[in-house]
Amino acid sequence: MGALHAGHVSLIDAAKRDGHVVVVSIYVNPTQFGPKEDLAAYPRNFDADRDACEKAGVDLIVTPTDAEMYPPGEQTRVKPGRLAETMCGPLRPGHFEGVCTVVAKLFNIVMPDVAYFGQKDAQQALIIKQMVADLCFPVRIEVCPIVREADGLAMSSRNAYLSKDERIRALSLFRALSLGKQRLLDGEANIGSIIEGMREEIGRIAGPETVIDYVVVVNADTLEPADSPEGLLLLAGAVRIGKTRLIDNLLVEL
Amino acid sequence: MGALHAGHVSLIDAAKRDGHVVVVSIYVNPTQFGPKEDLAAYPRNFDADRDACEKAGVDLIVTPTDAEMYPPGEQTRVKPGRLAETMCGPLRPGHFEGVCTVVAKLFNIVMPDVAYFGQKDAQQALIIKQMVADLCFPVRIEVCPIVREADGLAMSSRNAYLSKDERIRALSLFRALSLGKQRLLDGEANIGSIIEGMREEIGRIAGPETVIDYVVVVNADTLEPADSPEGLLLLAGAVRIGKTRLIDNLLVEL
Repeated sequence: MGALHAGHVSLIDAAKRDGHVVVVSIYVNPTQFGPKEDLAAYPRNFDADRDACEKAGVDLIVTPTDAEMYPPGEQTRVKPGRLAETMCGPLRPGHFEGVCTVVAKLFNIVMPDVAYFGQKDAQQALIIKQMVADLCFPVRIEVCPIVREADGLAMSSRNAYLSKDERIRALSLFRALSLGKQRLLDGEANIGSIIEGMREEIGRIAGPETVIDYVVVVNADTLEPADSPEGLLLLAGAVRIGKTRLIDNLLVEL
Repeated sequence: MGALHAGHVSLIDAAKRDGHVVVVSIYVNPTQFGPKEDLAAYPRNFDADRDACEKAGVDLIVTPTDAEMYPPGEQTRVKPGRLAETMCGPLRPGHFEGVCTVVAKLFNIVMPDVAYFGQKDAQQALIIKQMVADLCFPVRIEVCPIVREADGLAMSSRNAYLSKDERIRALSLFRALSLGKQRLLDGEANIGSIIEGMREEIGRIAGPETVIDYVVVVNADTLEPADSPEGLLLLAGAVRIGKTRLIDNLLVEL
């Protein structure tokens, strides 16, 4: 969706490293925003994005218009299943349907051999992988690690919304996830207690008025709640810092 | 879906005539059948189908299994829009979603340049065309004319279900559509009266106990009810002859 940052560039770098012709799509997709979300405010800066792409060695930028992607009369949607019914799904109705639909369009337009997604949007990456498997798209999905600021804040185009005070409070999510991960690695077996500790940590750092959309510990493949501390787990959360909604996650292998 | 008849062979012939390598998919797709429909009874005869394909010069037959098309955990669906909300849509909930989903899978498996569909399933052909446009599939859709028996009955794999008596009653739909078309060509302007006449004709030939799922006169591109006799119109109907549901349609250019 443009507003490229070091996280996006890491995807380009991964594709370059794998020796591919690299295509970047830049398109702020309206169907993945809810009516009360930040479609109008979402940062757009094509000149800076083009410069970043050129610098990173991108071969082609695809920047379709809304009229090309959603012409009058268009009506088909790609609908994800169970994986979209948890975490961000219920809080953002239609979001993952919009994501699947635009990614299916882009896959058919670009016809990539490999597509690179960021682990920052862990649920999105799983849903796209499932879509590719289910609809038999001849595309391999690579999921690249989260890129973070020096203090740990996950790179996000939405970080640009944060005031100085909010930037400090925003770190609460990463800190809480880190705390939860450490407690799991230390052998804590009570998942409920770990989640409670993460929620408290967010409140402690970001203030008690901070809205926590969710904090979960789930199976990293199915997104089903982890009932015991084993296997590959995903600690994930979404919080609202002022008007800015931020997500982050950590993987832990037990 | 196999049980190939002269209608299917006409699609193969069209593809051969256009000079293509011809791939036929044979797959009875469970997701396009409702729970009370004829999935289990649907005719399957792979040996005869293979012979018909060989005779027609088919290069490749694709016959996936249910386990390949719908493995455990699969959950993504392609959801059609407005075009699926009329005619067969409300009477067969999920049918066109199942059709779109399996066709999307097959397109990604086979990656055809051109795909041939039959006008017999006029609504399906329009929905597939819309899906291809909306999801940017690099496929051209060709819709081939209905192939009919000598007396006019549209070829259908489901005709195999008909008893001798039902075969006679089944012709009522084609007769009614022909009557409606003739009245339009004769200048009749009252669409409601034409539809009423078609319903009466079905009852007259097939018996008053015959269930008429629908008889419509619609815009052939949008499937919206025709309110005046002009442009390219589609006369379409679905009737149940005993336990067999049959559809048919005629185009008329006014």
